[in-house]
Amino acid sequence: ADAGAAAYVAPSSEQKINVISLRDIERQAEKVLPPFGFHFIAGGSGDEWTLRENEAAFDRLVIEPNFLSGVKAPDPTTTILGAKLSMPVLASPMGMHGFAHSGKEAGTAKGTSAAGTLYVTPSVSNLSMEDIAAAVGGGARWFQIYFPEDPGYAREQLQRAKAAGYTAIVLTVDATSFGNRERAAKLGLKPPPHLGFGNMPKSPALAGQNPDLQKKDLTFDDVAFCQKESGLPVIVKGVLTPDLAAACVTHGCAGVWVSNHGGRQLDHSPATISVLPRIADAVGGKAPIIVDSGIRRGQDVFRAIGLGASVVGIGRPLLYGLALGGAQGVEAVFQRLRAELVMTMQLAGVASVDKITSRYVSATAKL
Amino acid sequence: ADAGAAAYVAPSSEQKINVISLRDIERQAEKVLPPFGFHFIAGGSGDEWTLRENEAAFDRLVIEPNFLSGVKAPDPTTTILGAKLSMPVLASPMGMHGFAHSGKEAGTAKGTSAAGTLYVTPSVSNLSMEDIAAAVGGGARWFQIYFPEDPGYAREQLQRAKAAGYTAIVLTVDATSFGNRERAAKLGLKPPPHLGFGNMPKSPALAGQNPDLQKKDLTFDDVAFCQKESGLPVIVKGVLTPDLAAACVTHGCAGVWVSNHGGRQLDHSPATISVLPRIADAVGGKAPIIVDSGIRRGQDVFRAIGLGASVVGIGRPLLYGLALGGAQGVEAVFQRLRAELVMTMQLAGVASVDKITSRYVSATAKL
Amino acid sequence: ADAGAAAYVAPSSEQKINVISLRDIERQAEKVLPPFGFHFIAGGSGDEWTLRENEAAFDRLVIEPNFLSGVKAPDPTTTILGAKLSMPVLASPMGMHGFAHSGKEAGTAKGTSAAGTLYVTPSVSNLSMEDIAAAVGGGARWFQIYFPEDPGYAREQLQRAKAAGYTAIVLTVDATSFGNRERAAKLGLKPPPHLGFGNMPKSPALAGQNPDLQKKDLTFDDVAFCQKESGLPVIVKGVLTPDLAAACVTHGCAGVWVSNHGGRQLDHSPATISVLPRIADAVGGKAPIIVDSGIRRGQDVFRAIGLGASVVGIGRPLLYGLALGGAQGVEAVFQRLRAELVMTMQLAGVASVDKITSRYVSATAKL
Amino acid sequence: ADAGAAAYVAPSSEQKINVISLRDIERQAEKVLPPFGFHFIAGGSGDEWTLRENEAAFDRLVIEPNFLSGVKAPDPTTTILGAKLSMPVLASPMGMHGFAHSGKEAGTAKGTSAAGTLYVTPSVSNLSMEDIAAAVGGGARWFQIYFPEDPGYAREQLQRAKAAGYTAIVLTVDATSFGNRERAAKLGLKPPPHLGFGNMPKSPALAGQNPDLQKKDLTFDDVAFCQKESGLPVIVKGVLTPDLAAACVTHGCAGVWVSNHGGRQLDHSPATISVLPRIADAVGGKAPIIVDSGIRRGQDVFRAIGLGASVVGIGRPLLYGLALGGAQGVEAVFQRLRAELVMTMQLAGVASVDKITSRYVSATAKL
Repeated sequence: ADAGAAAYVAPSSEQKINVISLRDIERQAEKVLPPFGFHFIAGGSGDEWTLRENEAAFDRLVIEPNFLSGVKAPDPTTTILGAKLSMPVLASPMGMHGFAHSGKEAGTAKGTSAAGTLYVTPSVSNLSMEDIAAAVGGGARWFQIYFPEDPGYAREQLQRAKAAGYTAIVLTVDATSFGNRERAAKLGLKPPPHLGFGNMPKSPALAGQNPDLQKKDLTFDDVAFCQKESGLPVIVKGVLTPDLAAACVTHGCAGVWVSNHGGRQLDHSPATISVLPRIADAVGGKAPIIVDSGIRRGQDVFRAIGLGASVVGIGRPLLYGLALGGAQGVEAVFQRLRAELVMTMQLAGVASVDKITSRYVSATAKL
Repeated sequence: ADAGAAAYVAPSSEQKINVISLRDIERQAEKVLPPFGFHFIAGGSGDEWTLRENEAAFDRLVIEPNFLSGVKAPDPTTTILGAKLSMPVLASPMGMHGFAHSGKEAGTAKGTSAAGTLYVTPSVSNLSMEDIAAAVGGGARWFQIYFPEDPGYAREQLQRAKAAGYTAIVLTVDATSFGNRERAAKLGLKPPPHLGFGNMPKSPALAGQNPDLQKKDLTFDDVAFCQKESGLPVIVKGVLTPDLAAACVTHGCAGVWVSNHGGRQLDHSPATISVLPRIADAVGGKAPIIVDSGIRRGQDVFRAIGLGASVVGIGRPLLYGLALGGAQGVEAVFQRLRAELVMTMQLAGVASVDKITSRYVSATAKL
Repeated sequence: ADAGAAAYVAPSSEQKINVISLRDIERQAEKVLPPFGFHFIAGGSGDEWTLRENEAAFDRLVIEPNFLSGVKAPDPTTTILGAKLSMPVLASPMGMHGFAHSGKEAGTAKGTSAAGTLYVTPSVSNLSMEDIAAAVGGGARWFQIYFPEDPGYAREQLQRAKAAGYTAIVLTVDATSFGNRERAAKLGLKPPPHLGFGNMPKSPALAGQNPDLQKKDLTFDDVAFCQKESGLPVIVKGVLTPDLAAACVTHGCAGVWVSNHGGRQLDHSPATISVLPRIADAVGGKAPIIVDSGIRRGQDVFRAIGLGASVVGIGRPLLYGLALGGAQGVEAVFQRLRAELVMTMQLAGVASVDKITSRYVSATAKL
Repeated sequence: ADAGAAAYVAPSSEQKINVISLRDIERQAEKVLPPFGFHFIAGGSGDEWTLRENEAAFDRLVIEPNFLSGVKAPDPTTTILGAKLSMPVLASPMGMHGFAHSGKEAGTAKGTSAAGTLYVTPSVSNLSMEDIAAAVGGGARWFQIYFPEDPGYAREQLQRAKAAGYTAIVLTVDATSFGNRERAAKLGLKPPPHLGFGNMPKSPALAGQNPDLQKKDLTFDDVAFCQKESGLPVIVKGVLTPDLAAACVTHGCAGVWVSNHGGRQLDHSPATISVLPRIADAVGGKAPIIVDSGIRRGQDVFRAIGLGASVVGIGRPLLYGLALGGAQGVEAVFQRLRAELVMTMQLAGVASVDKITSRYVSATAKL
């Protein structure tokens, strides 16, 4: 925190917003966000190849509809790990929502609950996990953790999460080194003062513990630690290879989260949609698969599910919605995506989420 | 209809126009059309990927000519369902020609007849199907229908079509939900007052019926309904998969219309030219195949026929021609495309439409 | 010829020019040529897809050099049909050089001879074939013909060509209909008055004959006519398929000229370099193969020969050189290409033209 | 040397620089370099296809990470021919560093040594090889040679190199003819006066020898000459084919350097990363492989090693660093690349350079 730096003033409007599409609100959000905040959210790492590829890879897949199927009111609801969702889309964990809006994570949490789906609380939040849980209200919630260097601090977070009513732990494994996000430096933007961190160590035994220090040499022992100390199902987030997906199943993980961190970690990682079919083969239906990174359209949700996902996650568009309208903006983003998914299911002739299969998705014909 | 909205003033000129190519007139038409009207016509749905892909897919196909073939005056005429056409190109049904020209569908109908080919009347027209039939005059005509929610209204339309001299029914199956056409909203254009609807329910029993309500859970029972109530051959429009094409044949359809609605319905549907060869295999010559979506050049007509189409449809260029010159503009568009087809046949060494085969079309060599 | 149109004033400078590359002089020539003339030369037909593809297809081929080969002074000379050439590059026939320079075809002919290679006289020339032959001087020369509708006129041209010392006839077969070259119309450029035609019918029996009328229904009978009436070897120009190439061999043609007319005739014809390997297989070494359309670099000459060409032709760059410097400009274009070829041979480790094989050329690795 | 030409004033600042990425400093360096110098460094030959392809080819390869591997502090050090390096990245030989900085090759040499890696001295240097060796100090150094036409001059250079403490000879084989670098001519930039040549012949027997004359007809006899006269290991630089790589092994070469001269020699040579796997197969582990041309990111280093390289070379970015900060700038470039490599190894889950294998690298999934 640089005492001399100018304060960061995030938007604070709470209002209904009109979401034409999840792509459009990026441009709208850019107008209301301070440049550093916008590029912190929008940017990726390195050359941003993976960031672009996440969306470009969908353009290599077409949807082959089944007309005259007799479908009239497709049902987009689904369940995952016992939670009933209004749509197969959840809120991916992202750090520091205070860059997007004065309401911070409480706004995304409320908006997600209002949309009837699942909120995944980031551990690197500006608010505490307890305050965020309160904002989620009766909605479904999971807690994401970066495994800290000190196991005592890990234990504290896992136990707080359990106590706050989170029903699953999401362990992120693709961030044992910071990704080289270069946008701000290239644009000459100065980082603002730190916006506060909501999950500082509480136990006296952890006094002076630096919460930024993460464990680098993660293994499945740390997965087991999370399982044991939280007593909750554990999902591994960051899976990009069939081998790791299979190992997650073997080690009793409750879910496999296919992600490249939205193109923010290792640039030149593959697009998630590109590796999904092989991962689904490796998992073989033994655990639910969550996929994020690049989902912007109802057709993307449909294609990801068709290729093996149970549920997809979205990230940046939620922060844009938050910036533009607070919790109502977040809800509107989810509702727009849900409407596009319903439209896609209707036009493709699919009555329910479980019936979206690879029959409907194929590589763009190159004839 | 917003009573306070500014009136929509469509072009009304009736004149000969010089069509350099069907691509060029898009730019010319943009200059004479009100922005909402132009983008209503030109736009597609979602990210407009399918809209672009419809044309881009042709760039992956080359024509391999047969020189020294002894051909001198290629014959572009053909017949379909008993109608003799001056070229294997017909007018695809499009809604509300009043956006393009004050003459509405009568202009496109007259221009199409003048060009010697077949007009497919849209059910969502600004003029009535009877007025449009009169404008077609002695020319060939089919009637396109969106199957309404009320079967009585469906029956009324089918019987009116039969009575008005239409010789086939085209049942559109790819529009059981509105496509998310986003251009106007993105551009901030306000929809004008409604331009009027020509086929409102007439029977007292249908009083108060909302003509916009379409049946969503279409099946082949509805195809049979069309066949029975009209007593006319029925063509299914919107076929994108071999399975549906084969089912159309099984259910006695008189034709299979391969279309993605010009990229206006389910974005990320495949380009029609990309799926055509597999569909032609499935149909196996048991029914004529019509293809539209992306046809802009005589070479496109040639390639589509080479890959299995009997006849192709064109859409937007006709509305551009209409905007620029009324019925004469429409005729000029057809004549330009016909001239390009004749040139292509001459240069490729093909004497007649039935001799255009896959021998002349192949994937661009990637050597 | 429009008597009221403004006169067309072509450049007339005669000077040495510095050719950095054959691509660069296009931009330089654009500055000195009247717009109609420049676009007449530079343009292609239709969407100019084939025009672009002719060059783009080379970017899909890499040269795999053979270093440490001991080569020190590669020999770029070759022979074709008995003519010894300073390089395996000849002047493709192009119509109406008067658009490029006041010296018309005499300039390109002189420059080509000065460069030590072969001139192919176009029949649609502004000067007469006899005047052009005189300009060629002692250099090698062939005569290109568009077969006219009247066989008497064909005979006259063939016999004049023989008498003027031309040593082979090049019969163009890909132009039985005019290609739809649209540039001038799109740009709103008006055609200038006709620049004169050098090969008008001379025999009284042909009085009133329209020299623009070409025979459309060409067959191998017309090839035989050319062979018989000229007594010269006949090369068929415009071959794009293996079948036609094989038939040329069967019918005793002296050469197979692979060309798509520089992208000026049937748009969406394949790039010549893409079809060359299959054609070379079909010819099986039984006739020399000439290839043009898209050659701009020494590496292009090298790759074309590597894939089966005996000699390549260049077109537009010669007219740009002519526009910039008259005959000296034409010579400079040839010399630049020759220097690039020698550099390519040296770096690739190939001592002579006959040793350039497919061992050195392969598809760009897509690894 | 043109006595009348304006003097060339290269940058001369010595300072720490902030290297966001190796791509970014190109833009920064352009601002401080005289245009001729910048384009001399940045440009390639011909159409610069190979220049672009060198980087583009990496975009066709993804990194498939191995998360939960337990790696915490990846070791980027390696050894090559007995030299211990701080990272598997060395300084590729480039001519005339005086274009970049007043410190000339001494700056790049010092910066490379400071970064703890290996400097390859170019024979076409502005300083003498002895002065450069002194600047390298205790660091590892090799000497690159263009084999001169006069074997006596070759012998002199080889013996001077040995005497100056160079531990290997790098014989460049891809430059027996100058590449057609066209940028300066296209931009109308005039070459400045010659900046001096550091390795002029010294022996009286070589008086009057033109040092620019290189031997064109190189063979493995010349490789043997280098081996014999220097008594040092010899590495062949410029290998692009498996055949030549295998021959190098057979002829006792100490290393195989895969390079296309940074796209500065034969344009349309393949990207080095594209040919590397086949070359690695041919070498079969019998000699170390160095690869350069297009390496700009830690991920590129990682992918090149994964596909078979032992060490990679970088070129232009070093001259940009030199221009911006002298030796400190060069060191900063190396350190940035090393940091990116360490980050990549950590995220990919690889503990040491020898464990980077093809398991981590695959073609971009085209699904």
